[in-house]
Amino acid sequence: MAVYTDVATDELVEFLKGYDIGELLSYKGIAEGVENSNFLMHTSTGAFILTLYEKRVADGDLPYFLSLMAYLAERGVRCPQPAKNRRGEVYSTLAGRPAAIINFLEGMWPRRPNAAHCAGVGDALARMHVAGKDFPLFRKNPLSVAGWRPLFDLAAARADSVQIGLRDFIAAELAHLEAHWPSDLPVGVIHADLFPDNVFFLGDRLSGLIDFPFSCNDILAYDVAICLNAWCFEPDRSFNVTKARALLNAYGRARKLSEAEQGALPLLARGAALRFLLTRLVDFLNVPPGALVKPKDPLEYARKLRFQRGVKTARDYGLSYGGCVA
Amino acid sequence: MAVYTDVATDELVEFLKGYDIGELLSYKGIAEGVENSNFLMHTSTGAFILTLYEKRVADGDLPYFLSLMAYLAERGVRCPQPAKNRRGEVYSTLAGRPAAIINFLEGMWPRRPNAAHCAGVGDALARMHVAGKDFPLFRKNPLSVAGWRPLFDLAAARADSVQIGLRDFIAAELAHLEAHWPSDLPVGVIHADLFPDNVFFLGDRLSGLIDFPFSCNDILAYDVAICLNAWCFEPDRSFNVTKARALLNAYGRARKLSEAEQGALPLLARGAALRFLLTRLVDFLNVPPGALVKPKDPLEYARKLRFQRGVKTARDYGLSYGGCVA
Repeated sequence: MAVYTDVATDELVEFLKGYDIGELLSYKGIAEGVENSNFLMHTSTGAFILTLYEKRVADGDLPYFLSLMAYLAERGVRCPQPAKNRRGEVYSTLAGRPAAIINFLEGMWPRRPNAAHCAGVGDALARMHVAGKDFPLFRKNPLSVAGWRPLFDLAAARADSVQIGLRDFIAAELAHLEAHWPSDLPVGVIHADLFPDNVFFLGDRLSGLIDFPFSCNDILAYDVAICLNAWCFEPDRSFNVTKARALLNAYGRARKLSEAEQGALPLLARGAALRFLLTRLVDFLNVPPGALVKPKDPLEYARKLRFQRGVKTARDYGLSYGGCVA
Repeated sequence: MAVYTDVATDELVEFLKGYDIGELLSYKGIAEGVENSNFLMHTSTGAFILTLYEKRVADGDLPYFLSLMAYLAERGVRCPQPAKNRRGEVYSTLAGRPAAIINFLEGMWPRRPNAAHCAGVGDALARMHVAGKDFPLFRKNPLSVAGWRPLFDLAAARADSVQIGLRDFIAAELAHLEAHWPSDLPVGVIHADLFPDNVFFLGDRLSGLIDFPFSCNDILAYDVAICLNAWCFEPDRSFNVTKARALLNAYGRARKLSEAEQGALPLLARGAALRFLLTRLVDFLNVPPGALVKPKDPLEYARKLRFQRGVKTARDYGLSYGGCVA
């Protein structure tokens, strides 16, 4: 929830002269996106999202994920397509900030995902992985295993102020994951943040994937593991095997998981849980006074991590296509 | 800037079954409206604003201003029209709150109003006053002269913490206005909050008036006075007579101000300035810790009040149709 930068009408009208997307009819700051200013814009040719990037977007990242969206959309993935300006750029400067325009996707993110939604996201994720196979740009994942210890160092001293024992719990988990993180699994373009609020549906039909600023090159099955954590736990903290099965089977129909990927899923899911535990913990410990945004609960991901530590094989997720798939 | 209440998709889909406005395609919380939750909603038939009323809306007020918008829109005033549900109601309950749907008006509010914008708002305000002439409902203005002393009582003790001498300044002004407030001027339906962010334009052409929760029955020229304060001061605090003349002359072409109304304008403008000074002062002194919304500067209206005290006649506003109009 945030509009950090307001944009004057005449400034925006001037900016849009650089594009071929029609006359400006309206624009409203929307309460989505925590780190950027987003506007839903109507022009004479349709609806668009205008984003002003406020921070945390390194220079090279913007061309990566905007190009990726264009690349995926051209290959049939339902995701927003960045508008190019008359100089062929997918972003330029507005109100002193990098700014991009993407087409608006209709659809609603599921506040209470059901198994059909989980199947939808599994299918779309696999199709995205396949479509991104030959994407020419490369971006290392700053939030994969090598990025976790620096985050832990930022949070370790105060971790037990959030929950007694949290520091030791994370330290042990981090050591285990650093020692056992796989290096031989298929890699490619991953979304890396495919939470329910980044997936739109019309009814049970998936209408689009959005919000690619975390996209990068990493282990494909790690993306699946992020989704297992994000989509398959109930509000009462229980793991819903029906939803996990729906997600994994739908994924497998569009891109089969190798035996090695299946075998690694529980470990990858532990890592995925630790990644969000760490970033949430750092954010939680560093909320500025009077902040606009309530930090997300880090302990939600400590609980998910504990669950994933207890998972022995991918069969515990309800995966039904077993060893016959590679 | 606020979305206080999120609405689950299935709950909204269910709610919309009571309306004949098409299938839900998307809805986004928008960063407009300080006191309510507003969503820009796309359906298969068009764009709408969904508002959930959070507070400060007394039971009788909602039917008043929603009926007024319908009444004015039917009479050619460019303002949103509330959608009626299948039971004929212009509001009902969603997520435990009163909720209404109005059609979305395209247009942008002017961040830097020019004289053409001021002429537009003067014209539209006069047309609204004329169109509302026989509106059958009545709502007393809780923020007219009788409402100011209770506000002052809330703020008096701490007024000097904002500016030394503010308490005495307001006390003297309040006594003067209570003693001299006119009781014989034409009354009718007024908007009572027609600030630039409540008026949309496409280019210099006014496309709509929005945000009617303060609308009520009161002195028509008081509405004009509110606009003089809201539209005709420059960021450097100077009063722009060209803008005031544009506003008043455009108003006068659509509804002539009587000699009595013209004569009362400076006093009404003092009152209008005091009204916003007082509400802003109370809000400023009662900002909860960690509040989402930065309070508006009360001293902006103390300065405007000081200016208006120095105005002798409406000619000082650049009014050019003089005494020949009644």
